[in-house]
Amino acid sequence: MIGKGRFKKKNGPVYSVDQMYNGILKRDRSSLARAITLIESNAEQHFSQSQELLERILPHSGKSLRIGITGVPGAGKSTFIEAFGVYLCELGLRVAVLAVDPSSSISGGSILGDKTRMEQLSRHPLAFIRPSPSGGKLGGVHRKTRETMLLCEAAGFDVILVETVGVGQSEAIIRDMVDFFMMLVLTGAGDELQGMKKGIMELIDAAIVNKADGENRPLAIKTKEEYNRILHFLQPATFGWKTKAYTCSALFKEGVEQIWTMLQQFEKTTKDSGIFAERRRIQNKHWLYSLISDQLHFRFFKQSGIKRALPILEEEVMNGKKTVASAVDELFLIERNS
Amino acid sequence: MIGKGRFKKKNGPVYSVDQMYNGILKRDRSSLARAITLIESNAEQHFSQSQELLERILPHSGKSLRIGITGVPGAGKSTFIEAFGVYLCELGLRVAVLAVDPSSSISGGSILGDKTRMEQLSRHPLAFIRPSPSGGKLGGVHRKTRETMLLCEAAGFDVILVETVGVGQSEAIIRDMVDFFMMLVLTGAGDELQGMKKGIMELIDAAIVNKADGENRPLAIKTKEEYNRILHFLQPATFGWKTKAYTCSALFKEGVEQIWTMLQQFEKTTKDSGIFAERRRIQNKHWLYSLISDQLHFRFFKQSGIKRALPILEEEVMNGKKTVASAVDELFLIERNS
Repeated sequence: MIGKGRFKKKNGPVYSVDQMYNGILKRDRSSLARAITLIESNAEQHFSQSQELLERILPHSGKSLRIGITGVPGAGKSTFIEAFGVYLCELGLRVAVLAVDPSSSISGGSILGDKTRMEQLSRHPLAFIRPSPSGGKLGGVHRKTRETMLLCEAAGFDVILVETVGVGQSEAIIRDMVDFFMMLVLTGAGDELQGMKKGIMELIDAAIVNKADGENRPLAIKTKEEYNRILHFLQPATFGWKTKAYTCSALFKEGVEQIWTMLQQFEKTTKDSGIFAERRRIQNKHWLYSLISDQLHFRFFKQSGIKRALPILEEEVMNGKKTVASAVDELFLIERNS
Repeated sequence: MIGKGRFKKKNGPVYSVDQMYNGILKRDRSSLARAITLIESNAEQHFSQSQELLERILPHSGKSLRIGITGVPGAGKSTFIEAFGVYLCELGLRVAVLAVDPSSSISGGSILGDKTRMEQLSRHPLAFIRPSPSGGKLGGVHRKTRETMLLCEAAGFDVILVETVGVGQSEAIIRDMVDFFMMLVLTGAGDELQGMKKGIMELIDAAIVNKADGENRPLAIKTKEEYNRILHFLQPATFGWKTKAYTCSALFKEGVEQIWTMLQQFEKTTKDSGIFAERRRIQNKHWLYSLISDQLHFRFFKQSGIKRALPILEEEVMNGKKTVASAVDELFLIERNS
């Protein structure tokens, strides 16, 4: 049976917040995994425990470099993360890979995070790979990813790679939870840029043209130059840092070292200027307000009266049959009277 | 004294919703002006009247072409609107100019909309110029501008020009209330683009390089070409319409006719494809949800208990002293207990 202060993994033994807390600080992987599972749990009774755990690990968090990685399917995210992650591990760094897949919050499952995609890395003792959580309630996936980052940091991971597919607003959301945001792109910028998601170019700190190998190499270099030409005209995502394009071959592990050097430069520059710390402060603030907003919307739209009235009012408003203000009035009246 | 169904302008006579409604349909300018003042009023007792009026004029609205115009101060918005507006009036079109100045919702006054900026146009019998409303509560300015557009349409205006300064999120908000969105730009794109606001290029249907006269002309043409080169790589704001750059000299009334021709092409193309109608439907939907969101936030953050607790919790969260989730919990607990 599940006591208040204890967490029972499905059909598994019972763990106290204490056990998980101590395990995480001892860098025990299974404690970390259990803690993440606790945080990902949508069960009401687990919420207070996960919050208690987070409160306690919070002072031990924040020490990693948080790197967001996006790119259209086929851009080679998995191969890149595999190569980049293994490279970092070989430098003795502890690397955590978190997959964020907003679509999984709808499907309930995850299309990302499959360890078989990163076989070498997943076997490395210094690496930790965690697939995307299923969302549950509004904003769930991202809250859980943010909290998982904190757990990983407390467990002593030096670099956290947050992988996402460019679905919906995911890039903007990931940008707001990482220190550095990179986009993996395919060669043939012109055509790709045409269909590129709006505003994405202004979110990134680097564009990585992957698959710069063999016959594809000249095209990759041309693509890099095209990106640099466009990036030159856009406001960089990070004050004091020039967003540029780079080539690399994840397959042949070329350019990976150069990317790590660039990342270290970024960390030094932004930490010296104070931008690094200030961004994290602001990210926490945004996170607070977005969570408040999520709760307000969740609480309002879950009401059966609102659920019934909304589709009708929405249609009337869309067809110009009713003013927006009066539709909103009706909704809040329904809430008051229920 | 003010009766329920009557609107009293400060120290002025009393008008019924009926009078204003009939006046607007008769295209009586003073009735329109009074109705807008009613809508702009932040007084509680005026809200129900303004909503009653809007409900009634709604079937007569929606027939204008709604054009949003942005640009940094000094880009020559006033001169352009003056020249463009007068040109349209000379074609026999009725033109309404609405100034939206988000900053005025803070200052309480308006830095835009001063009729002396558009002397010729303001004197034209077919033109109607209305300065920016002061905001009052959250989202006030934009709600009022949207509703004012509806009144102007009921009053038979063919073209509505919504002018804004690029403050905060104003461009994205204006984009979502107009059919066509143009940006006036200065010559010397390179430097200007560097400092350009993120994502703005992806919101516009046209970039107008103004002041293409005298010695400045060659530079204006060069600037136009630079913009076209960048725009070529970005996803256009309107499906099926290619966003391009144009030159014009508002001062010497050159290029104004070409811009109107382009706008007519836009209207025809998007109306034929159905994009025009669909965008308005979606704009209404967005408007509904943003107003619901405004109300939810307004209602939550105005509470004295929340007002007291928020700054402290915010600081704790920003400094990593408290987890976001627990801060949010505390806030909603405060709400429940108050």
